[in-house]
Amino acid sequence: MSVPVKSAESNDHGHRSTANLSIGGYLIQRLRDYGIEDIFGIPGDYVLSFYSELERSPINVVGCTREDCAGFAADAYSRLRGMGALCVTYCVGGLSVCNSIAGAYAEKSPVVVISGSPGLRERSVGALLHHMVRDFRTQVDVFEKFTIAGAELNDPLTAFAEIDRVLDACDRFKRPVYIELPRDMVHVVPAVAHGYAPVTRRHDSSATAEAIKETVGRIAAATRPVIVAGVEMHRFRLQDELVRLAETTGIPIATTMLGKSVVSERHPMFIGLYEGAIGDAAVTQFVEDSDLVLLLGAFLSDINLGIFSAKLNPDHCVYATSESLRISHHHFHDVDLKEFISGLIEASPASNSRAIPEALRLSSRLAQDSPGTDDGSGAHPLRTSRMMERLNDYLDADTIVIADVGDSLFAATELTIHDRGEFLSPAYYTSMGFSIPAALGAATARPDHRIVVLVGDGAFQMTGQELSTLVRDGHNPIVILLDNHGYGTERYLHAGTWKYNEIHPWKYSELLNIYGRGKSYVVDTESAYADALAAAWNEPSTPHLIQAKLMENDASETLKKMAARMGENVK
Amino acid sequence: MSVPVKSAESNDHGHRSTANLSIGGYLIQRLRDYGIEDIFGIPGDYVLSFYSELERSPINVVGCTREDCAGFAADAYSRLRGMGALCVTYCVGGLSVCNSIAGAYAEKSPVVVISGSPGLRERSVGALLHHMVRDFRTQVDVFEKFTIAGAELNDPLTAFAEIDRVLDACDRFKRPVYIELPRDMVHVVPAVAHGYAPVTRRHDSSATAEAIKETVGRIAAATRPVIVAGVEMHRFRLQDELVRLAETTGIPIATTMLGKSVVSERHPMFIGLYEGAIGDAAVTQFVEDSDLVLLLGAFLSDINLGIFSAKLNPDHCVYATSESLRISHHHFHDVDLKEFISGLIEASPASNSRAIPEALRLSSRLAQDSPGTDDGSGAHPLRTSRMMERLNDYLDADTIVIADVGDSLFAATELTIHDRGEFLSPAYYTSMGFSIPAALGAATARPDHRIVVLVGDGAFQMTGQELSTLVRDGHNPIVILLDNHGYGTERYLHAGTWKYNEIHPWKYSELLNIYGRGKSYVVDTESAYADALAAAWNEPSTPHLIQAKLMENDASETLKKMAARMGENVK
Repeated sequence: MSVPVKSAESNDHGHRSTANLSIGGYLIQRLRDYGIEDIFGIPGDYVLSFYSELERSPINVVGCTREDCAGFAADAYSRLRGMGALCVTYCVGGLSVCNSIAGAYAEKSPVVVISGSPGLRERSVGALLHHMVRDFRTQVDVFEKFTIAGAELNDPLTAFAEIDRVLDACDRFKRPVYIELPRDMVHVVPAVAHGYAPVTRRHDSSATAEAIKETVGRIAAATRPVIVAGVEMHRFRLQDELVRLAETTGIPIATTMLGKSVVSERHPMFIGLYEGAIGDAAVTQFVEDSDLVLLLGAFLSDINLGIFSAKLNPDHCVYATSESLRISHHHFHDVDLKEFISGLIEASPASNSRAIPEALRLSSRLAQDSPGTDDGSGAHPLRTSRMMERLNDYLDADTIVIADVGDSLFAATELTIHDRGEFLSPAYYTSMGFSIPAALGAATARPDHRIVVLVGDGAFQMTGQELSTLVRDGHNPIVILLDNHGYGTERYLHAGTWKYNEIHPWKYSELLNIYGRGKSYVVDTESAYADALAAAWNEPSTPHLIQAKLMENDASETLKKMAARMGENVK
Repeated sequence: MSVPVKSAESNDHGHRSTANLSIGGYLIQRLRDYGIEDIFGIPGDYVLSFYSELERSPINVVGCTREDCAGFAADAYSRLRGMGALCVTYCVGGLSVCNSIAGAYAEKSPVVVISGSPGLRERSVGALLHHMVRDFRTQVDVFEKFTIAGAELNDPLTAFAEIDRVLDACDRFKRPVYIELPRDMVHVVPAVAHGYAPVTRRHDSSATAEAIKETVGRIAAATRPVIVAGVEMHRFRLQDELVRLAETTGIPIATTMLGKSVVSERHPMFIGLYEGAIGDAAVTQFVEDSDLVLLLGAFLSDINLGIFSAKLNPDHCVYATSESLRISHHHFHDVDLKEFISGLIEASPASNSRAIPEALRLSSRLAQDSPGTDDGSGAHPLRTSRMMERLNDYLDADTIVIADVGDSLFAATELTIHDRGEFLSPAYYTSMGFSIPAALGAATARPDHRIVVLVGDGAFQMTGQELSTLVRDGHNPIVILLDNHGYGTERYLHAGTWKYNEIHPWKYSELLNIYGRGKSYVVDTESAYADALAAAWNEPSTPHLIQAKLMENDASETLKKMAARMGENVK
């Protein structure tokens, strides 16, 4: 039995008049309805009319150095604010954000891509317009591959409804959407009135009730249950429900790597990151010994699962995401994740949970984090793991940590993220160069937070110029550049000394001077790093770049284990 | 009647043994057959095995800072060498080159895209692999939109034939192609012998003969004929035929903007660039007064034709490209462009060509180019048009000029390219940020040539870091950075003062220091620019970067005319 239910997130603006609103104007109004106050991008002639509308609107336009950077920035903004947007020109702009948007699709980030396009009047001439690839639909066809919904606003009669439909899908599925706006449609005022009709969503209440009942029974019967929480807890804003479930039932929580920070890592019920054989052995044992694993909003991806080293028995698993729900070997359709979790909380089944082992308790984890092995001299060569320990001492609830891929990501799993703190990384799609533009997005979304970026030299060379936009807009991130002269992860993946892993060394410490503001540090010992970090932390009014010179074969423990697993597929 | 003819370009390697050759090994061998000695890209775990094969092979691997830069570099290499290639990892790499490859498609550059992908054995696990977007075919589906052929090398029995088919299509159509190589297929040696079978191409000899006969008749009857040559003369290596046709028939040659440099601009039969109402009025009048316009290998695009300001009467046109042949209002199918032009030359029809007007003769054009209006003080503020005049004095047959989009491109149309010199630009697709990575491709393809880059500040901020690779590899380009603090073309396209056209100023002159080699100049007067250019030209052993500070509203005459036309569509 299916009954329509109204989405909690949908905005009810049905009574607002749209008289005299142009298509461009309506799009701006609807973006604002979803809390979008800033938009990222680069102008171009096919989108200039809409850019001018944006500049006249309350939305702040953040010009970036490159379109793909605008994509990463909008992705980070979306993760922090629930929805974000970018605006680019036709093909040369749009086709430059394919990778960023594919990443947002893979990691469920609700980004609205707005692209200008040739005016409908221009298309009839029969000749080739600049920026055109094959035909007028090339870009639409491409974006269909990695967006959840798309629209070409070619018809004033349907344009408003199309905008509603596409933005609703973005909000509902937490995936990117695509809107193409021909430049001669921007100022067109449709001749018909439009009322926003909130989309009704069908969930199966009978299936939901049955799934809750069965899960409650399993919780009551279990003696060794555990929750493994994933990134959807964050995307669907279910963090509070997650904590309440753990507290009500007494079941401890682990998270996946992509789900890192969905629960405060200082919460007493949190036991650590579950990463199969590559993670903390005590966490792995705790999870894999369980007779009930509640996988909530977790992607079963290779990196999340330590390259498939996770040993989870499906008989013991309840696997619930926004897309599907499976208990052992049977499936329930059309069950809403939030309703499911809320139902579990309401039933508050008594569980016979194990005590959390000493090693996984908060006090032990914090003790592990502190640099207890310091002999006081501080002249040790830099080690990534030790750098993370030092950084850990500074993290607080007002910090957002952004990790790029490679050892920036693996080492960052060793950090302890606070309540209300955030951890952003492309942990599943693992696209190099995410972090600096993401820092722009995060700083724009949360100007009251401190931003710390962990980035390798290879990733930095890809998109590091977006630091210039952070500088321009008055943001003050701390960038920790892990400089190991090349593609460090690959050195671990594939034995041998390969020239292709070397990258050209830059004097990174001069870059902030080129961009016009900030302080730089070049460090190669632990004490110099500690001093630089302290100096940076104590001066929040300017950007900082700490170039940490690592030994070429340095790597975090996590990377070493991960590489051993991954390397089996790279011969 | 169709008869199979063997392509002149195809390589006959049918007798070579492929015993013991792996799929990766065969791919490398076939790339080398087409003259590819260098390959651009960035390694990643799904392509590491093939990267290691490349590093062991005679092919030189040129690591870039970003994948899209590798795409532009391979595009430039392809234009200069007849075929080029890039090699990237799955999705995060491949989807980052969409824009570069779409540009190569639009401008007919034969680039081979090689992407690694997850091993076939890994795909059966049923979980998500990192870098994956939606399913395993996402990237293949996307590249289908802007490549002329593609192959997934999933089957050892067909892999060699697939490689042959795809590379042949690249060579034949001068468009990009896509090859996806699962990482566990790289070392697989097929169990069957393989002989390369040259592809036979069907042309219609009867249609060709008829088209030649009709065109010869029109040439003989015409009193005011002209040739308008386009970029395909370059891509299909028909420059010699073009000159012979002009010399045999006595018909003068103009070129389109994208076709700039397909004929030496010092050839006495060359009359200039035909750009409709935005170009040189004397050229426009000469072409549009003609009673026969032989359009050879020219795209009819908006920028090529001065935003459709060209007034060509189809009754007077013979429009021949590699894809189609139209005389007045009737069409011939399956006519080979080279055979058609060769047929015209063989028939050598007597033409009653006009004398070239005084203003369009070489001597007049050269006189116009020289900076005759200099009053000797040299303290004038910099003007783009005057900068081009100065640069023109230095150009010689061993120079390659690369123009980025915007006024770099429009101003560069005012340069006179020598015989054997080359002019590269994205004149149709007009993707910002092409020039610096293209300089890497050009320098790699033609290390004996001097490379001059004209690039705006907006474009430079997109991909300027590829200068680091030029520095690393010992190349010594002269980069002329036209710094007008923003997106200058857009200021002309759309009236008003818009914040979104401003970009953050950098101290560009410090960048070569960060990359480790080269000399920089900051100039804001004509004399300082002249001095910097002289110094740079006289020291070919190091890279040079000349930051030319322009007034914000400076623009070449060509841009001003172009913008007036284009602006009509941007309201």
